[in-house]
Amino acid sequence: MSSVCLSMEGGAAAATPTALPYYVAFSQLLGLTLVAMTGAWLGLYRGGIAWESDLQFNAHPLCMVIGLIFLQGNALLVYRVFRNEAKRTTKVLHGLLHIFALVIALVGLVAVFDYHRKKGYADLYSLHSWCGILVFVLYFVQWLVGFSFFLFPGASFSLRSRYRPQHIFFGATIFLLSVGTALLGLKEALLFNLGGKYSAFEPEGVLANVLGLLLACFGGAVLYILTRADWKRPSQAEEQALSMDFKTLTEGDSPGSQ
Amino acid sequence: MSSVCLSMEGGAAAATPTALPYYVAFSQLLGLTLVAMTGAWLGLYRGGIAWESDLQFNAHPLCMVIGLIFLQGNALLVYRVFRNEAKRTTKVLHGLLHIFALVIALVGLVAVFDYHRKKGYADLYSLHSWCGILVFVLYFVQWLVGFSFFLFPGASFSLRSRYRPQHIFFGATIFLLSVGTALLGLKEALLFNLGGKYSAFEPEGVLANVLGLLLACFGGAVLYILTRADWKRPSQAEEQALSMDFKTLTEGDSPGSQ
Repeated sequence: MSSVCLSMEGGAAAATPTALPYYVAFSQLLGLTLVAMTGAWLGLYRGGIAWESDLQFNAHPLCMVIGLIFLQGNALLVYRVFRNEAKRTTKVLHGLLHIFALVIALVGLVAVFDYHRKKGYADLYSLHSWCGILVFVLYFVQWLVGFSFFLFPGASFSLRSRYRPQHIFFGATIFLLSVGTALLGLKEALLFNLGGKYSAFEPEGVLANVLGLLLACFGGAVLYILTRADWKRPSQAEEQALSMDFKTLTEGDSPGSQ
Repeated sequence: MSSVCLSMEGGAAAATPTALPYYVAFSQLLGLTLVAMTGAWLGLYRGGIAWESDLQFNAHPLCMVIGLIFLQGNALLVYRVFRNEAKRTTKVLHGLLHIFALVIALVGLVAVFDYHRKKGYADLYSLHSWCGILVFVLYFVQWLVGFSFFLFPGASFSLRSRYRPQHIFFGATIFLLSVGTALLGLKEALLFNLGGKYSAFEPEGVLANVLGLLLACFGGAVLYILTRADWKRPSQAEEQALSMDFKTLTEGDSPGSQ
């Protein structure tokens, strides 16, 4: 349970729940280990990364893990980490992190399509690619709709309040689908590259399995921090910021906390 | 928003939210299609199912989809579907569905280990198997802990209230991990069986990709029904039932809604 204290400006600011920073630190440790381990896997066993060669493919997993796992996950956590910053600042940071994630993921997509084209491989036949395209389209649509509702100053307070729970649900779902898609891609790479050697507990296979478990754990950690009821951003601070930002607060219309 | 009406017994019973039955029906349609399509895939392309032959393996995907996807998902929805039944009845149904799921999953596990043993294949080397064992152990532990806290009459009301959010979070997470593990298994089966033909858009590959998307959609539908705030079981009915069941209600201790 978080207690409430008075901030210097005289407004009510909720104290950060005691355990939250430890969980956030743990999620960051998982996330960074994930990125480092993806790099280590590609460097040690897949020959590293280079755009103008057969190593172009390797840019795909690295960009996807950085963009659609690490950055996307952290964009979701922004409202838990910056609990007492102005709502508008937090929103802009949330939107920016998602743009970075989208651009990095786009580089990762170009890498794999370009590699397939050069090699004459078929595109979009696998479950991994179908899920991946679905994630990318949903992610882009969610960003556009989120921007129109929350950052563009047109939508009314009541419209925002009604859309907010949908935005949060679809945001979490797209993130989880990204984690699932990454697991499918990892599995695909392992079966293509190792074939029968996978069942002999080759070091690359074991490393990649651990990487897969870390992916799932990072997804779980972000979901836990995001959904824990007493860690939600206090709605009071949110209402205050919204009313200051947009002057469209109507009476008798109270939003859920973000 | 759900309105509140008086039941015949004079207690307060919340009306079922208008859209909930449609979402539940949609989730069931998805779930049943999923089971039927898994059966169709195994029947049409994998030679069907028989315990005492090479077809023993095929019992594994079917049991897992019925147990750890369809039944597990429905066990989570019990508290949304039976909103106005006595809490204890709903609890028992929730526990029973999970036991059925566990037993069917156990048959699926025996099928694959037995098949591996007969064929001399290695066990537990793949990411799918690692995730699968993790899911199975977590599922079993969650069931035991859930039983001890909620069905066994020893735990205090305050202990139950503190554990409930953890039980719900881990329940949803184990379900999502089950969906992810099923996707990995499907992908593995496709790459083992189709190999290079997968990229030629073979009918089996397309069917299995659609099955994979349905799996993800079923996971999303269950998660949506489970997490929508205004569809939660009203806490009033829950408190009432708890106090009648266990007579351990202490004052000043109010639980969150299930």
